[in-house]
Amino acid sequence: MGGHEIQQLIRLFGRLPGLGPRSARRIVLYLLRDPQARLQPLLRALDQTGQAVTTCSTCGNLDTSDPCHICTDETRDQRLVCVVETVGDLWALERAGVHGGVYQVLGGTLSPLAGVGPEDLNIASLLARLDAGQVREIILALGATVEGATTMHWLMDRLAEYEVTLSRVAQGVPAGGALDVLDDGTLAAALGARRPA
Amino acid sequence: MGGHEIQQLIRLFGRLPGLGPRSARRIVLYLLRDPQARLQPLLRALDQTGQAVTTCSTCGNLDTSDPCHICTDETRDQRLVCVVETVGDLWALERAGVHGGVYQVLGGTLSPLAGVGPEDLNIASLLARLDAGQVREIILALGATVEGATTMHWLMDRLAEYEVTLSRVAQGVPAGGALDVLDDGTLAAALGARRPA
Repeated sequence: MGGHEIQQLIRLFGRLPGLGPRSARRIVLYLLRDPQARLQPLLRALDQTGQAVTTCSTCGNLDTSDPCHICTDETRDQRLVCVVETVGDLWALERAGVHGGVYQVLGGTLSPLAGVGPEDLNIASLLARLDAGQVREIILALGATVEGATTMHWLMDRLAEYEVTLSRVAQGVPAGGALDVLDDGTLAAALGARRPA
Repeated sequence: MGGHEIQQLIRLFGRLPGLGPRSARRIVLYLLRDPQARLQPLLRALDQTGQAVTTCSTCGNLDTSDPCHICTDETRDQRLVCVVETVGDLWALERAGVHGGVYQVLGGTLSPLAGVGPEDLNIASLLARLDAGQVREIILALGATVEGATTMHWLMDRLAEYEVTLSRVAQGVPAGGALDVLDDGTLAAALGARRPA
């Protein structure tokens, strides 16, 4: 094997989500076979991003500017706020290109077992936007999990005092999904929310 | 999504072997959620390795010193040289801990189709070691592929003029391998190389 530095690099890559020792070795070998063309660009990108990354104080998104490029985008409906659990959820909605408004990233879900209470969720900036009358509608786009549902109900209570339209994403059969592989909860939700054909 | 720098970082991770856009996003999110504990150590390790990595002028190994730590290890048999195709093969043999000698990394195999000829293989330093009388035995540990076999036969010709023992790794049933999943070539090699039980 290579020297101490190479071993350490393999260890660190092996800790990344989805990677293990074998894939980490493969990646490190790939990088070291042509450091100028492979390792250096990655190094520069990590350096630049690591220096610039920050949490948007308006919505909780990760970006290299604060407020983030979504919160400063004047072509978006700044009064339509979609509440999501994580930055990964925000990215997924942005990739799909299905939301023309802005976001509020909670940074997690209520979970008594994991010791996550209301004070751990990022909602202060949402309440500030509500207090300032900057919000017309809030879409709750939380996961269809026990924690997601708990968090959604707590949020609906918390936001009841505001003059704002509250909506939630629909549950049902996912696009391309066959019914026979879906779980009972999804089937029940899809039947319960049935619409005229 | 995040800003330009974050997008670029995701693109670069997505080009690493075994990764794609989805796994790259997951890794970048993981790194950005705690830059101090996750991104910075990886950045430092890449920086240190990128600056220090070099190719051993004796054997062709990748290491942070030249000659590499294997070629300078006095507890190893420096006169027993194992010829391998790639640094990855060298790492595999080192992990197994089955070779007490040193190495020669060819950096590839002869492949007329891919335009790889004898002049592209790293054997000059092996010939220099042979000329200096520093080699007792050479083990050819090349892959059981057409290119590996071609390269091995070419090497056996090339090394015939030297007073040195030439051997090659055995082919046969891999440890833990059931016979019914092995290909015909492996079965033929295993039968052909049968030994008294």
